[in-house]
Amino acid sequence: MALTTSPAPPPPAKSASQPAAIAELRDELYSVAVLKSVSSVLGWDEQVNLRPAGAEHRAEQLAVMAGLTHARSTSDELADLIAAAEEVRLDEDDPQRAVVREARRGYERATKLPRDLVEEMSRVTLLAQQAWVSARRNETFETFRPHLARVVELKREEADAVGSPTGRRYDALLDDYEPGMTSAQVDAVFAPLADSLSELVGSLEGIEAPSTEVMEREYSVRAQRELCRFAAESIGFDLNAGRIDEAAHPFCSGFGPGDCRLTTRYSRDLLSQGLYGTLHEAGHGLYEQGLPPEHFGTALGEACSLGIHESQSRLWENFVGRTAEFWQFLMPTVKRLFPSVSSGTTVDQYVEAANVVRRSFIRVEADEVTYNLHVILRYELERELIDGDLKPADVPGRWNERFRELLHLDVPSDSQGCLQDVHWSAGLIGYFPTYTLGNLYAAQLMETIRETFPDLDRDIAAGRFAKLLDWLRTNIHEHGQRYAAPELVELATGKPPSSQPLDAYLTAKVETLRTRSA
Amino acid sequence: MALTTSPAPPPPAKSASQPAAIAELRDELYSVAVLKSVSSVLGWDEQVNLRPAGAEHRAEQLAVMAGLTHARSTSDELADLIAAAEEVRLDEDDPQRAVVREARRGYERATKLPRDLVEEMSRVTLLAQQAWVSARRNETFETFRPHLARVVELKREEADAVGSPTGRRYDALLDDYEPGMTSAQVDAVFAPLADSLSELVGSLEGIEAPSTEVMEREYSVRAQRELCRFAAESIGFDLNAGRIDEAAHPFCSGFGPGDCRLTTRYSRDLLSQGLYGTLHEAGHGLYEQGLPPEHFGTALGEACSLGIHESQSRLWENFVGRTAEFWQFLMPTVKRLFPSVSSGTTVDQYVEAANVVRRSFIRVEADEVTYNLHVILRYELERELIDGDLKPADVPGRWNERFRELLHLDVPSDSQGCLQDVHWSAGLIGYFPTYTLGNLYAAQLMETIRETFPDLDRDIAAGRFAKLLDWLRTNIHEHGQRYAAPELVELATGKPPSSQPLDAYLTAKVETLRTRSA
Repeated sequence: MALTTSPAPPPPAKSASQPAAIAELRDELYSVAVLKSVSSVLGWDEQVNLRPAGAEHRAEQLAVMAGLTHARSTSDELADLIAAAEEVRLDEDDPQRAVVREARRGYERATKLPRDLVEEMSRVTLLAQQAWVSARRNETFETFRPHLARVVELKREEADAVGSPTGRRYDALLDDYEPGMTSAQVDAVFAPLADSLSELVGSLEGIEAPSTEVMEREYSVRAQRELCRFAAESIGFDLNAGRIDEAAHPFCSGFGPGDCRLTTRYSRDLLSQGLYGTLHEAGHGLYEQGLPPEHFGTALGEACSLGIHESQSRLWENFVGRTAEFWQFLMPTVKRLFPSVSSGTTVDQYVEAANVVRRSFIRVEADEVTYNLHVILRYELERELIDGDLKPADVPGRWNERFRELLHLDVPSDSQGCLQDVHWSAGLIGYFPTYTLGNLYAAQLMETIRETFPDLDRDIAAGRFAKLLDWLRTNIHEHGQRYAAPELVELATGKPPSSQPLDAYLTAKVETLRTRSA
Repeated sequence: MALTTSPAPPPPAKSASQPAAIAELRDELYSVAVLKSVSSVLGWDEQVNLRPAGAEHRAEQLAVMAGLTHARSTSDELADLIAAAEEVRLDEDDPQRAVVREARRGYERATKLPRDLVEEMSRVTLLAQQAWVSARRNETFETFRPHLARVVELKREEADAVGSPTGRRYDALLDDYEPGMTSAQVDAVFAPLADSLSELVGSLEGIEAPSTEVMEREYSVRAQRELCRFAAESIGFDLNAGRIDEAAHPFCSGFGPGDCRLTTRYSRDLLSQGLYGTLHEAGHGLYEQGLPPEHFGTALGEACSLGIHESQSRLWENFVGRTAEFWQFLMPTVKRLFPSVSSGTTVDQYVEAANVVRRSFIRVEADEVTYNLHVILRYELERELIDGDLKPADVPGRWNERFRELLHLDVPSDSQGCLQDVHWSAGLIGYFPTYTLGNLYAAQLMETIRETFPDLDRDIAAGRFAKLLDWLRTNIHEHGQRYAAPELVELATGKPPSSQPLDAYLTAKVETLRTRSA
């Protein structure tokens, strides 16, 4: 049941109606994007298909492509094309302004980073990741510490090289993932959210969590594949223009018009892992499939920010996929695909299991309420590291202290604490906040969507997702990077981004648990 | 049961012991080969994974990569490196001579073709293939004729542009697939083979073909996958450095060290299709996996010729895979994987079905004996087309006449005659002879192998293929393109290529059928 179908994508819009300088810039951006998309294919294949002995050759292929892409993204020819396009007078509301603006932004970022720094970063993070793997396994933060220190040092150099609009180094890093967003803006939404969620979590003390046993039975992986395919296709993911495969780390990769690949992973004894993983990636995939193909390669054909991307995955995974109505819709298929294991189970059992709130140490296993506390903690620490207010050696102590404040739990070991995530070792500093920004945006969008479509729950229960998807297409997907994330959210919802909708949503969720337990 | 395992490939041999000019040329050839191998990944993924809506974007990716590869293969920098390497004095038996020789040959071929001709060829063959599809479907050779005429015209221009060592245009085209081979050499082996096989086929008149029913039962595709994987792995295909997937057209693609991909296709009611298709592609794959990884990108790390490549696939598919001993080895696995469908079947039934000789109209469905007659017919016609001795309009008549002479059958329609193959519409003229050259080489190699290992049949029956594979590694694979094909065959067998071993093998095969029937 495909609700949307992608026709063969039109060729790139080399529109004759555009000024020549704009059209020429667009052509060059298109070519660079095609080149980059080749690396995406290589990366996807590496995760999905590559056999161990091919790893070294694949690294050579990726290195050659990275070199070509970098050369093309920093060429004098591109600089000239951007400069010429900047001379064109465009109306205040001409969407091509975003094309020129983002081309300039990308060019500056690419050229301001000294080649030495890029190479050193690549060398250091490779070693840091290896050190991280062994430190996590052996619970030896000390062996990872010098690597972390070196990564932080280089990220500070990177921030200085690209320059920060606010003068604060962390903002230069954040800007890479969430263009135009500043740490002051993040603080403004994260700080109240931290207080409120921490209190919410505390209020659950002593209340027994609902059982998740129904998800933990033995579900045949073959049938899970069919269920997940059905779920992704039902919400609108177009399998005529995409695929779902398996990989150790689930991800979504949009190669370009008409080709978006999701990966997921199945656990034989945890139905929710494959199902919610697939809905999450399918949410990313719907965004990719909704970007206007005629603008591929330009800002108008690219995702707005990582936070907006994450809002799309979270919206489908959580705000749709965990509702009672979604389970009503899914239940006949569950019963058909798993006749014996689902015998006698009820929609309520699945809904309860899917909405459990339970404090835990590992971010990627956390529920909707506690997840954001995990993220906020990381954001605070990495900002302090970049600001120089926190020494790498003090990370474990600070982590555990803050974890206790936020989640009221004592971290038993660094592998369940500050060593659990790959991000810092990989140089991904400034990335974490986009996870919670995604949840904030998703909640705010969903609040407006529910106001717009009072019958939404009835539609979900009947498996009718087209209106919801169309709203997202029109209000989010089709704009590409025309607006910065906060502006886009405000245009779609009529209000600037705020922590209030997420707070209200999670408070209601906890309230349900408390009522049910009472 | 893997008989050989590939360790992680060593980095490219930038050997300090080589003269600087040779080392520099090798480095550049390596980089160009890595670039080319990226296109191979894109091509493989297109056949195996791509969804319909992604076709246009994939074409853009391939075009960008082809442009980059062409630029790099025809650069002045490469010309200078080749010229410098040619100045180096190398011993008569230094293998690096082949590196320089083939670099020169590749560069000349790439630069001698005018850009206009390449683009025109690409345009014309695209249209010709579309016209071919519809002409074959509608039995209208006349609508295809002008396209064929234009392809032939362009191939003649191509031959004139690259130049022929013998002065004969066809040889310039043949040289692209079978370097150094001339049509005079091909004639010398094909002419006697045509006479002899045609007579052999005639001698079967009135003799009832053995039953193939045992192959045509309902074999679960899932179990077929397991059987084929087992067969490929047993003969030595290293799944740690390769994959077996499914595609509409079976092929083998060696991306580079440690990464070789086979595709096959399964038919639910024809066991032999998937099994022999897999053995065929695995034969190609063993060759790719046996090329020395330290020479990747240079002539010493590349396959000798298409004919030698085909000899490796045919050797495993036919000369090993159709023996009674191979079926003895395979039978327990067949019985285990298909317990009910194989219940009561015998090794003899499978062997008889696998060795049936039966005249038919379609080349790709032909048996070992008649297959070569199909190929020889195509070779004769395409050579006459290029020589100007045959007009495109006369192709159907000439085809049907020659088919009657060689196979003693009246072609009922062009779709079962001159319109059955894609090659000519795709501009692949000079390619067909490599199929039968492969059979000739395989037979000659196998004759020597049987002399060298008198116990070969016993080994095959026991599933011991290591000695055979090692012989091929040492005598064929490891040499790459150091020697031209005829030279390589002579080095390996002590005799120049001849039609005699294939003739003897096929005569014996027909003799068995006649005896059995008597």
